[in-house]
Amino acid sequence: MGPPYTRAMSRPVVTLTSDFGAGSPYVAAMKAVILRGCPDATLIDVTHEVPAFDINQASFLLWAGTRDYGPGSVHLAVVDPGVGTTRRGLALDVGGRFYVGPDNGLFSLVLEYAQISNGVALSRQPGASPTFEGRDIFAVAAARLAGGVPLATLGVSITDPTRLPPLPTSVLWVDNFGNLVTNLRAPIGGVRVGETLVTSTAQTYGEAEPGKPFWYVGSLGYVEVGVPGGRADRLLRARVGTLVEVIPRLSSPRD
Amino acid sequence: MGPPYTRAMSRPVVTLTSDFGAGSPYVAAMKAVILRGCPDATLIDVTHEVPAFDINQASFLLWAGTRDYGPGSVHLAVVDPGVGTTRRGLALDVGGRFYVGPDNGLFSLVLEYAQISNGVALSRQPGASPTFEGRDIFAVAAARLAGGVPLATLGVSITDPTRLPPLPTSVLWVDNFGNLVTNLRAPIGGVRVGETLVTSTAQTYGEAEPGKPFWYVGSLGYVEVGVPGGRADRLLRARVGTLVEVIPRLSSPRD
Amino acid sequence: MGPPYTRAMSRPVVTLTSDFGAGSPYVAAMKAVILRGCPDATLIDVTHEVPAFDINQASFLLWAGTRDYGPGSVHLAVVDPGVGTTRRGLALDVGGRFYVGPDNGLFSLVLEYAQISNGVALSRQPGASPTFEGRDIFAVAAARLAGGVPLATLGVSITDPTRLPPLPTSVLWVDNFGNLVTNLRAPIGGVRVGETLVTSTAQTYGEAEPGKPFWYVGSLGYVEVGVPGGRADRLLRARVGTLVEVIPRLSSPRD
Repeated sequence: MGPPYTRAMSRPVVTLTSDFGAGSPYVAAMKAVILRGCPDATLIDVTHEVPAFDINQASFLLWAGTRDYGPGSVHLAVVDPGVGTTRRGLALDVGGRFYVGPDNGLFSLVLEYAQISNGVALSRQPGASPTFEGRDIFAVAAARLAGGVPLATLGVSITDPTRLPPLPTSVLWVDNFGNLVTNLRAPIGGVRVGETLVTSTAQTYGEAEPGKPFWYVGSLGYVEVGVPGGRADRLLRARVGTLVEVIPRLSSPRD
Repeated sequence: MGPPYTRAMSRPVVTLTSDFGAGSPYVAAMKAVILRGCPDATLIDVTHEVPAFDINQASFLLWAGTRDYGPGSVHLAVVDPGVGTTRRGLALDVGGRFYVGPDNGLFSLVLEYAQISNGVALSRQPGASPTFEGRDIFAVAAARLAGGVPLATLGVSITDPTRLPPLPTSVLWVDNFGNLVTNLRAPIGGVRVGETLVTSTAQTYGEAEPGKPFWYVGSLGYVEVGVPGGRADRLLRARVGTLVEVIPRLSSPRD
Repeated sequence: MGPPYTRAMSRPVVTLTSDFGAGSPYVAAMKAVILRGCPDATLIDVTHEVPAFDINQASFLLWAGTRDYGPGSVHLAVVDPGVGTTRRGLALDVGGRFYVGPDNGLFSLVLEYAQISNGVALSRQPGASPTFEGRDIFAVAAARLAGGVPLATLGVSITDPTRLPPLPTSVLWVDNFGNLVTNLRAPIGGVRVGETLVTSTAQTYGEAEPGKPFWYVGSLGYVEVGVPGGRADRLLRARVGTLVEVIPRLSSPRD
């Protein structure tokens, strides 16, 4: 029996996540390589505004931006402080979706939510630039997967992708509206962020009191802190990495 | 007679406008839902840099960015301070183009330039996140319209979308070059912006005097104020919302 | 014999480069025109964050972002301080790839690396906006080329596109990580940037000493200066345009 062949989608989706910045021509260079290998690909930018070399942020944004894509989709991620070193490049089949990028922990959050079906350490390409593996190794692999090439043919099998050490209970991300996305899951009684105790809760902004912080379970499944008509990051002086203290839920007779 | 069936385009265009910011993974999440519902869609970002919750700016940018698209195109707009409240979600057929988003006035400028042919209040989706209706309600509706599903099947008919109160004569938008786009239409004799009287006019930058403010009718049909080789916003200390005084055109014998 | 017909690609690639900014609706307006003329086009943004009117930066970013695209691809560039003046609009066939934009030197770096096969000065379009030729002239021409219309039919033949005067030895671009991309090519012995002499070299960041500046040949083929674990732009107080002094390579007996 040969390797399991992937049936190519008619318009395969390839997403891109990087810390290259919106002003960088290198994203378009990676897309050139993907389209040469798979001219029918639909290319989607998750973001190229990951803070430079910030693998924890990248791990969060990659997971949050790609979790709604279906089987056969390919997700290229290049946040890579170790480019040109001996760290491996990976391609992973995670429940039918493919993830491609450096083996530095970038896939940690994705792998917290889904199992690896298959994984390979990508073979080195002769002539690949030692400073632009995003184009010469990862984009090449993404194009092949998008075109239906079996994962197993791209390198030697691996089962141990690097995982980031678990983060403390803290702010994972601050959205454009100042809402704090934490790595906490309900049920909780509330949170303390800096000196502010937040025990009010509501399902949506519309139900909560204007100007007052409240917590809610956001669309990602995590506890978030928001301020209706204001910004939680400013009011609570919080940012990515700010520690969050859990206030346990008081047990009630029915619990 | 059944509802009027839309013939699906072979590669339907879906544009996206939001205040999510370039660093947000939520835009890619909305695109995942659109592509799942309509894999052949061509996705175009108008902008995700609308100032947070600024419906007036969103109304302008949505109109300006989508007015050149043809019949069958779908335009998703999510600037939504009222997410999770009882405000309605809308899908509108505006002269063959479809607009989808919250009913908060976002479509005001679009509707100043074209008539609604049909409109519906979108039905609630079971299981939709109360904090991410952009993905769970609006992107779903956009995908259906792009795939040729008739508008009338998406909800109950409405004819009264919310309109923003008219703005005073003011700066609507400042472009990347510092040009002031006003909501004025010619003929005028000139404008006063702050303490600066601008009566010089020219058809293009090339014809106007370097370093001096002049007014012209821009590509959107509105009066704009520019400074050749400089920035009108800095020279005139103006920004979005700055009031503009109209200087009437002196009548000539032929007028 | 008629003009050489271009065989249209099934999904022709059109890239866009401008100084319009990520908040501008004008990029989506240009894309509307391209998709109306060529509904099957795959649209790729190189960047819209070129500093306003900076033709030297645009020339670099356009070259760097499009050099990996293959024959038949179309590259639209609109950085155009002379919009609405008598400067020409151009469409160039550069080794099978098409470049479209104003004749102000924007194509200088592209033309340093490849020969023009054919070029035309674009015919004026009746009704074109004098302030938005990006949409009304250049996007129209890009769509035609993407759809397989022969270049020669778009205007009168030219052979003398404007070239920018050569830059001094200097920093061409600073990437998101603070690396300085110079316009120097190896072999060199090192560079002096401001008061800092950089003679250490390595093939990759991983091989170089943390915190110390080193030079290397980047993926574009130019000498770059980086600082492993730091930012060269900050450490060396350099930015685009900073002059760079070449330290000649000491000849060895084998040279």
